[in-house]
Amino acid sequence: MNTSPRGRQFFFNPGPTNIPDRILGAMHRATLDFHSDEFLAIHRAAHAGTKRILKTKQNLFLYAANGHGAWEASLVNLLSPGDKVLMLESGHFSMSWEEMCKDLGIVVETIHADWRKGVDPAEVTKRLKQDGKGEIKAVLVVHNETATGLVHPIADIRRAIDAAKHAALLLTDTISGLGCMDFRFDEWGVDVAVSGSQKGLMMPTGLSLTGVSNKALEASKKGGLPRHYWSWRDAVKREPQKFPGTTPVHLFFGLEEAVKQMDEEGLDAIFARHRRFARATRAAVTHWGGGAKSSVTVSAKGFSGPVKGIEVLANDPARTSSSVTAIVLPDGHDANALRTVAIKRFNLSLGGGLGPLGGRVFRIGHMGDLNEPMLLGAIATVELALGACRVPHQQGGITAAIAALAE
Amino acid sequence: MNTSPRGRQFFFNPGPTNIPDRILGAMHRATLDFHSDEFLAIHRAAHAGTKRILKTKQNLFLYAANGHGAWEASLVNLLSPGDKVLMLESGHFSMSWEEMCKDLGIVVETIHADWRKGVDPAEVTKRLKQDGKGEIKAVLVVHNETATGLVHPIADIRRAIDAAKHAALLLTDTISGLGCMDFRFDEWGVDVAVSGSQKGLMMPTGLSLTGVSNKALEASKKGGLPRHYWSWRDAVKREPQKFPGTTPVHLFFGLEEAVKQMDEEGLDAIFARHRRFARATRAAVTHWGGGAKSSVTVSAKGFSGPVKGIEVLANDPARTSSSVTAIVLPDGHDANALRTVAIKRFNLSLGGGLGPLGGRVFRIGHMGDLNEPMLLGAIATVELALGACRVPHQQGGITAAIAALAE
Amino acid sequence: MNTSPRGRQFFFNPGPTNIPDRILGAMHRATLDFHSDEFLAIHRAAHAGTKRILKTKQNLFLYAANGHGAWEASLVNLLSPGDKVLMLESGHFSMSWEEMCKDLGIVVETIHADWRKGVDPAEVTKRLKQDGKGEIKAVLVVHNETATGLVHPIADIRRAIDAAKHAALLLTDTISGLGCMDFRFDEWGVDVAVSGSQKGLMMPTGLSLTGVSNKALEASKKGGLPRHYWSWRDAVKREPQKFPGTTPVHLFFGLEEAVKQMDEEGLDAIFARHRRFARATRAAVTHWGGGAKSSVTVSAKGFSGPVKGIEVLANDPARTSSSVTAIVLPDGHDANALRTVAIKRFNLSLGGGLGPLGGRVFRIGHMGDLNEPMLLGAIATVELALGACRVPHQQGGITAAIAALAE
Amino acid sequence: MNTSPRGRQFFFNPGPTNIPDRILGAMHRATLDFHSDEFLAIHRAAHAGTKRILKTKQNLFLYAANGHGAWEASLVNLLSPGDKVLMLESGHFSMSWEEMCKDLGIVVETIHADWRKGVDPAEVTKRLKQDGKGEIKAVLVVHNETATGLVHPIADIRRAIDAAKHAALLLTDTISGLGCMDFRFDEWGVDVAVSGSQKGLMMPTGLSLTGVSNKALEASKKGGLPRHYWSWRDAVKREPQKFPGTTPVHLFFGLEEAVKQMDEEGLDAIFARHRRFARATRAAVTHWGGGAKSSVTVSAKGFSGPVKGIEVLANDPARTSSSVTAIVLPDGHDANALRTVAIKRFNLSLGGGLGPLGGRVFRIGHMGDLNEPMLLGAIATVELALGACRVPHQQGGITAAIAALAE
Repeated sequence: MNTSPRGRQFFFNPGPTNIPDRILGAMHRATLDFHSDEFLAIHRAAHAGTKRILKTKQNLFLYAANGHGAWEASLVNLLSPGDKVLMLESGHFSMSWEEMCKDLGIVVETIHADWRKGVDPAEVTKRLKQDGKGEIKAVLVVHNETATGLVHPIADIRRAIDAAKHAALLLTDTISGLGCMDFRFDEWGVDVAVSGSQKGLMMPTGLSLTGVSNKALEASKKGGLPRHYWSWRDAVKREPQKFPGTTPVHLFFGLEEAVKQMDEEGLDAIFARHRRFARATRAAVTHWGGGAKSSVTVSAKGFSGPVKGIEVLANDPARTSSSVTAIVLPDGHDANALRTVAIKRFNLSLGGGLGPLGGRVFRIGHMGDLNEPMLLGAIATVELALGACRVPHQQGGITAAIAALAE
Repeated sequence: MNTSPRGRQFFFNPGPTNIPDRILGAMHRATLDFHSDEFLAIHRAAHAGTKRILKTKQNLFLYAANGHGAWEASLVNLLSPGDKVLMLESGHFSMSWEEMCKDLGIVVETIHADWRKGVDPAEVTKRLKQDGKGEIKAVLVVHNETATGLVHPIADIRRAIDAAKHAALLLTDTISGLGCMDFRFDEWGVDVAVSGSQKGLMMPTGLSLTGVSNKALEASKKGGLPRHYWSWRDAVKREPQKFPGTTPVHLFFGLEEAVKQMDEEGLDAIFARHRRFARATRAAVTHWGGGAKSSVTVSAKGFSGPVKGIEVLANDPARTSSSVTAIVLPDGHDANALRTVAIKRFNLSLGGGLGPLGGRVFRIGHMGDLNEPMLLGAIATVELALGACRVPHQQGGITAAIAALAE
Repeated sequence: MNTSPRGRQFFFNPGPTNIPDRILGAMHRATLDFHSDEFLAIHRAAHAGTKRILKTKQNLFLYAANGHGAWEASLVNLLSPGDKVLMLESGHFSMSWEEMCKDLGIVVETIHADWRKGVDPAEVTKRLKQDGKGEIKAVLVVHNETATGLVHPIADIRRAIDAAKHAALLLTDTISGLGCMDFRFDEWGVDVAVSGSQKGLMMPTGLSLTGVSNKALEASKKGGLPRHYWSWRDAVKREPQKFPGTTPVHLFFGLEEAVKQMDEEGLDAIFARHRRFARATRAAVTHWGGGAKSSVTVSAKGFSGPVKGIEVLANDPARTSSSVTAIVLPDGHDANALRTVAIKRFNLSLGGGLGPLGGRVFRIGHMGDLNEPMLLGAIATVELALGACRVPHQQGGITAAIAALAE
Repeated sequence: MNTSPRGRQFFFNPGPTNIPDRILGAMHRATLDFHSDEFLAIHRAAHAGTKRILKTKQNLFLYAANGHGAWEASLVNLLSPGDKVLMLESGHFSMSWEEMCKDLGIVVETIHADWRKGVDPAEVTKRLKQDGKGEIKAVLVVHNETATGLVHPIADIRRAIDAAKHAALLLTDTISGLGCMDFRFDEWGVDVAVSGSQKGLMMPTGLSLTGVSNKALEASKKGGLPRHYWSWRDAVKREPQKFPGTTPVHLFFGLEEAVKQMDEEGLDAIFARHRRFARATRAAVTHWGGGAKSSVTVSAKGFSGPVKGIEVLANDPARTSSSVTAIVLPDGHDANALRTVAIKRFNLSLGGGLGPLGGRVFRIGHMGDLNEPMLLGAIATVELALGACRVPHQQGGITAAIAALAE
């Protein structure tokens, strides 16, 4: 096979993701004084547009930081050392957020779950009902677990908290969900939603955000950890938001353009497009695996048993992600070897398995600015790479994807 | 089918073609004084690099013009009103060049041919042998006919002229061949080769060129039409070439970068990649058509009979293009309707049929800066569009393409 | 003097000139099919906008070429070998256009003039009156002579032709005038106006144009030289204009944006800004020279006598250019040495003297996308360079320029 | 005065500052997987280059954050609630850093100083000698106070600490100094140096950094505030540095290019250029003010008395900044009105006075990618604006600046 990594790199990592030319173009300009009228108009438009995407009329704070910064902001403004939170396990990123809590002196209790399925909301109700003293200050949940392609039903979890008549705040991470899947901050009763620029918002990494309910903002005035950079206290002092230090002007140039592009397509159309593309991707994967579905479970300790054929990792049909699909290879086949062939020979970048999934799983990020030729090109090239790596698979996954798109 | 033309436009027209980001980036800069040392170094590098691509140590002249300008340069420097030339028919572009000759007062005699097969060199020898008086001043031939995906064997045609012991110059159009397929200007004994920037050189339209043999350059001193802009007389006066008026600085910024990129990959690797991609494209088309091959011929009057299934237009396996494939739809199906679905629903731009091929043929340009995911994405999307337009086809053309690439 | 050529190059050549970031940005995008609806809308807007700038409702043809191409188009569509034209001398560019005429077999008769002052319209009337047989087919005049900073009054020359009751067409070159100074194609009765993209239109080189009166278009149907690329015959066949070969898509991306930017500022504001900046430039130059004005004249043979102090070359106050100022150094001082210091030490690019003005003259192009800090930065740096080169001058030219701008 | 804000905006704010085209171009590209070999090579080169600029072989940590984030990192890794620090007053930014300390529960003792002169190192020694118990954990000092154009001598302050035989760490803010003025982290015995991307590094805002001595890194293992995002603990786990969450890929594309550009010019040449430009700026200001120097002092309460003429704020010749000059207007004249004229009429962006300097002071940032025409253009335009606003001044400041550059 005589190949060459020419052409535009096909980027199907689950974030950062493809940045539309118009966004790169919008960021290719001289700086502006961040106090100038010209910039403040851009700042204002970007801020307001992001609130529309998050479906909130409450509070939005942006940070010159990546998503981990916004995670930290959600914690230090609301929780004090020794406070307890309830974490719903979903995979690598629920575990990382948990680790951050611990670093900050917050006590974490975890509801464990199969990484392929996530937590049952009934378990949340059950645990909170036991907490008569109200020791649990917040429930933390990853909306769209980037590492597994699993989605937690946020509205159901809100209902589960309410069913327990518990005052815990609901803190959510929708870093890889926002802009790809519906997220109704106000309607669902979310207290904090964390997200970042480099996923559904189609931008470079470096800007992150928290949606904050009025209730959470009020709570932040009384508690929290020592803080300045992440503090909501100063951020509310100006409209649009006052930054500690210099506003990251160029990231706002990009965000304003991202918001414009999303307004043009419309959120409903964007979400429908992501659903179609995710469905087509899963159709290809299922075809490659011959339709076989194992009952193997996954936890921080890894896989509970052998996997015989290619499968979609997230195996609850009601909880599959529209933005990322994690794919399990059969035992004895190295997902990273496949990824190396994809990038070195074919210039296709795929995501790897994180933590215990390393080498067992690869991920296709199908989020952001994609169309049919881009998605089909990626799937067809995965099929080409499966052959090159001699991973057993039923040929024609790409045809199944075409058929799924044609529906 | 709920679709949306988001994502990067997939551009598979046979020119202009995909411009690599690095070339667009190289052109995104402030201008330079075209007399400055800084610019002359760029000018020189771009000029020398283009000679390497054309495989000539003789003369190269560049024009601030598109390919038609270079066609005109090839004629006005060498031919006088009333001079006769022999045109080898290949399709739309041989006919357009013929028309230009006529506008300029040059007499054209055409060796007619099936547009699916082109001219037999033996016919050239035969005709030239009859021209005892040497009335025929030049043989004109399109190397790679962009309208049909047909390739004429230039070295064979040189031999055919020599076999007739005739002094006619050999003028070739390799606008869509150069940089995609081997072209050995010096070795093959070509006198003039015409090309442009927006095909295998992967640049915007606006720069074109002629390779000129020493013999042709000598001939130009004695004859030709009234000329200034296209004249080779002044162009040789400086090194690098003197332009009439302002040198098109930005196009040289791009050309320098294009040459660098091509040097990095290497011409042999580039040509091999184009061959592989062309083969995979034809494998898909042949699969869609169920392998059927009609014996229908094509001329300026159109198709000689009905076409029952999807076919590759150029049906001589020794003469298929590496840079463009023209595809015939079965009678009763509108190739432009297919193209409209491709662009409007899927953001895939395909080439149309030219002249009598309009509506009957669409073209996939697989030239320039492409990789496997890009090509497979285009082919898979054509398969999706064939279904959407209810054009009868055997599913799985994309799988055939994958198999061809895997060889 | 410890200096370093860092920072953005200051570009004050009289074309190509500064390209606004928004135009470079508009050209930094993937190509489009030039037949697509999306591109045709851009083509149409750019074409219509350029007609507004030229102030014509008659015909406009664009060329994938530089300004010399448009010169050639103006000749080959209207004149036949042996036809006679009357050229009004202005400097290097009137002489170059004359040379082109001769190459094309056109007979040129020149009305000679001091390059500092140009031709008196009365001389045109006088000569045409002598041409009872109507041998003179056209009067050719450079509107804004880029080499000298001299302006010919086009409306007056039209009146001069009419006063002689002569049928000669009026062909004008406004390559460095259009978009900088008022040009009223229809109102002034111009028959052909030639211009290019890289001056007042603020774009890269590579697109040029001719405005063509209905009368000239009609005349072109009957005469002219053998032509195809430049022919107006085919160009009128479609709206927007049909190009021979591929339309130069990226140059239209830029032209559309240039037209938008010019519409936003408004032509009257643009012309007023150019007048202010030219006046400030001349104020600086005059101050450097201590106000001395020599009576030396200039022709193709050079200067008629010694120059004692720095002077503006164009010394008829009614005929100074708004887009370029040519500056004469005193005898014994090398303008190119000054230019070398400006570019090598201070990163300021200045224009040189052309033809017999070489080494005697440098030129400041103050055309296109400029503001006060840019202009003042250039003038101040010229003053710095005059000192570095020990060219005698009265300090404070920059202060005179500031005062002129403050008026 | 008929003016128009056309042309490129002249940006002379003291940060963010002019971003060279090559840096914007380097950031105008598709993303890369931040784990990929291709990106890690870029990451590594940028990291190593930044260490060269900071002149350290010890530790460098970068943050997806602005400079305030790096301030916070310097505090939370080293100081615990209730720890005391000694702040040397310099102006707005020493006060802001102080405020951040207080928000984080750190006790601040300030050595007050005239904002025009800063703190005498002898006072540091004196105070530390009194601290027999070693309650003061760190001395905090702003190297280059962006708000006043005042420079603190860091090496002298290190010596002052050592003279007291005190263990306090030396924490410095060189946000607007790094890359403009020499900063010898290792040689000077600095423990932490804070800086950001949008000043001397010529990039967009969003990346910040701390140089950390081995001694400080060791100290951080034992103390500090609860932290995760800013923690040095995880950052050292990989080479190049592991980020919490996604590495900000595009900012590294820019930083790699910035480092290349700075390597090409050389640090010594960069610093010499900044010194020359600062000297020329002060020469202009001093000329405008007629050379008058008041003895008015400045503190958080404002000016101690009336100012009669235009002056440079920082009036200790040994402590003037190479990167920014703050300029005081005479009483009764509004610096913001001047700035409004500069930006609205002439497209020149100037910095304003911060805190008690608001309306009294404007600032010229002369940092980063500048050359003579840019600087002179800004100074000349300030002179034009002074006239337009009827601020009393002696004309010819620009001529004084030219003379200073000519030395």
